[in-house]
Amino acid sequence: MRARAWASILRRSMSLIAVGTLAFDTIETPFERRAEVLGGSVTHFAHAARLFGPLEIVGVVGNDFPAAHLERFRALGIGVDGVEVARGKTFRWSGRYEQDWNTRRTLDTQLNVFEHFDPRLPAAGRRARFVFLANAQPAVQMRALAQVEAPRLVVADTMNLWIDIKRGELEELLRKVHGLVLNEEEAHMLSGRRNLFQAARLLLEQGPRFVIVKKGEHGAFLLGRDVRFALPAYPVEEVVDPTGAGDSFAGGFMGYLASVENLDPATLRRAMLYGTATASFCVEGFSVEGLERVDRSRLEARFNELAALVTP
Amino acid sequence: MRARAWASILRRSMSLIAVGTLAFDTIETPFERRAEVLGGSVTHFAHAARLFGPLEIVGVVGNDFPAAHLERFRALGIGVDGVEVARGKTFRWSGRYEQDWNTRRTLDTQLNVFEHFDPRLPAAGRRARFVFLANAQPAVQMRALAQVEAPRLVVADTMNLWIDIKRGELEELLRKVHGLVLNEEEAHMLSGRRNLFQAARLLLEQGPRFVIVKKGEHGAFLLGRDVRFALPAYPVEEVVDPTGAGDSFAGGFMGYLASVENLDPATLRRAMLYGTATASFCVEGFSVEGLERVDRSRLEARFNELAALVTP
Repeated sequence: MRARAWASILRRSMSLIAVGTLAFDTIETPFERRAEVLGGSVTHFAHAARLFGPLEIVGVVGNDFPAAHLERFRALGIGVDGVEVARGKTFRWSGRYEQDWNTRRTLDTQLNVFEHFDPRLPAAGRRARFVFLANAQPAVQMRALAQVEAPRLVVADTMNLWIDIKRGELEELLRKVHGLVLNEEEAHMLSGRRNLFQAARLLLEQGPRFVIVKKGEHGAFLLGRDVRFALPAYPVEEVVDPTGAGDSFAGGFMGYLASVENLDPATLRRAMLYGTATASFCVEGFSVEGLERVDRSRLEARFNELAALVTP
Repeated sequence: MRARAWASILRRSMSLIAVGTLAFDTIETPFERRAEVLGGSVTHFAHAARLFGPLEIVGVVGNDFPAAHLERFRALGIGVDGVEVARGKTFRWSGRYEQDWNTRRTLDTQLNVFEHFDPRLPAAGRRARFVFLANAQPAVQMRALAQVEAPRLVVADTMNLWIDIKRGELEELLRKVHGLVLNEEEAHMLSGRRNLFQAARLLLEQGPRFVIVKKGEHGAFLLGRDVRFALPAYPVEEVVDPTGAGDSFAGGFMGYLASVENLDPATLRRAMLYGTATASFCVEGFSVEGLERVDRSRLEARFNELAALVTP
């Protein structure tokens, strides 16, 4: 019995892996400016997913990245054996939100050590069953995926840049993943359709079993071969910084699925609610502040509140 | 038994009344242009609400308004005894939708006979229990309302113009209605808050028991003293003309409530689904074409589809 429990913990501890960026973000909102705060797609994803159990992340940082940050990751149950510390500077991104929050302008992007990122999965990560490929060059996402021995669920994010300049690679990636997460603009670009439901249906034909379109403050919807689910965003009263909301959504979504190891339609719908509830904590603070201060019980309370809000 | 059934029919036939505009619309979409089609707030409202039972409308048209239009209203169960035929031209509106459908530009507005509209409710309308005050000058809405003897539910719509130039009157109206229906921009303007949930909460303090914020293709939410409900729009695949979607939503919402004569939270949620489902037929055609060709059974099918889409 004890041996079995231990085996279960071991299995759980390596069931989810995420590959993406760790970064320093400089963010201007209508109310405040923060310079060089901890950011990056896998950072937000991990701070969300860790609410459901331990996970491993894979990425690269420069030697300017404080060891204390990685310690903080570990303390939250986020394994960082797959985070390479390279000579050079950490990826940096800088952006500004306009008064209406809906317009985000990228002011500066410095890839730095991420430019030559070559993901190397630690042994535990190679045995992961749930894999999230955060936004990166599709070839890099595929190199990471190739190292996972027997993935059960692979979900990828992408961005407009890759749709523009690496469409062929991206289409190859689509044939290798089970789920695709993207925003409205990316869904339009990738499918050539303005109507989001038509767009999602076309994308389904390219390989994935489900597509999730994130619409920011307007919610998200999931279209799969046997599931359709649309829901509004959680009504956050004071948005502090929307950066990382999409990755936090993915973190809540994948974290929940990895924790229950089930992919039926009802579970996917619950995962959408968990993703939405988790993302709502992200936008209540800069960087990972909102996600760091939340625990599972507050998340459950918000999940229930959201379920009550959307249930007819 | 027969007498009782007859009394019930009489009561039902006069339980809902709507006051607003009848118009000729000239509409340009990214794909097509239609000139001088039947439009107006109460026209769309009525073509939606009639799916749930008979109703009365109050408005004014010019002597250029074909009698055949009013005959068509009657044939659908829409009582037009409260529609005054005045000397002069019918209200005309002309607008253009941009490529993304989200931007609507008003090209021309000619109030014509509506400028001096003085609503006179027919006897049946004065005994109505459910009252919808479509967008009009707040003083006109109040003059209509004053003629209803014992309303059970009064819901009003408004527009940016009245918020700008008749705020005092509008605030007086808010103290006399149970429900307020408005779009995002109007909620911002009227409350001074960008955050829609804060906006709705502030508006609740001004009188209404519930506020519905319509977000077009992004759905709608209801905030009441004892109910909160948010839902996405029905995923229409081919939008033909969004004109009248908001009034059709209100028509489905009020029509359902008037048909069940109940206002508890579960019923209000169902009414939101009916409003959303009804509006989806409106946008599938120009003018009232989409609403005219639908019947209650197709509406029920779409209601069920929408409920399945949003239920966690």
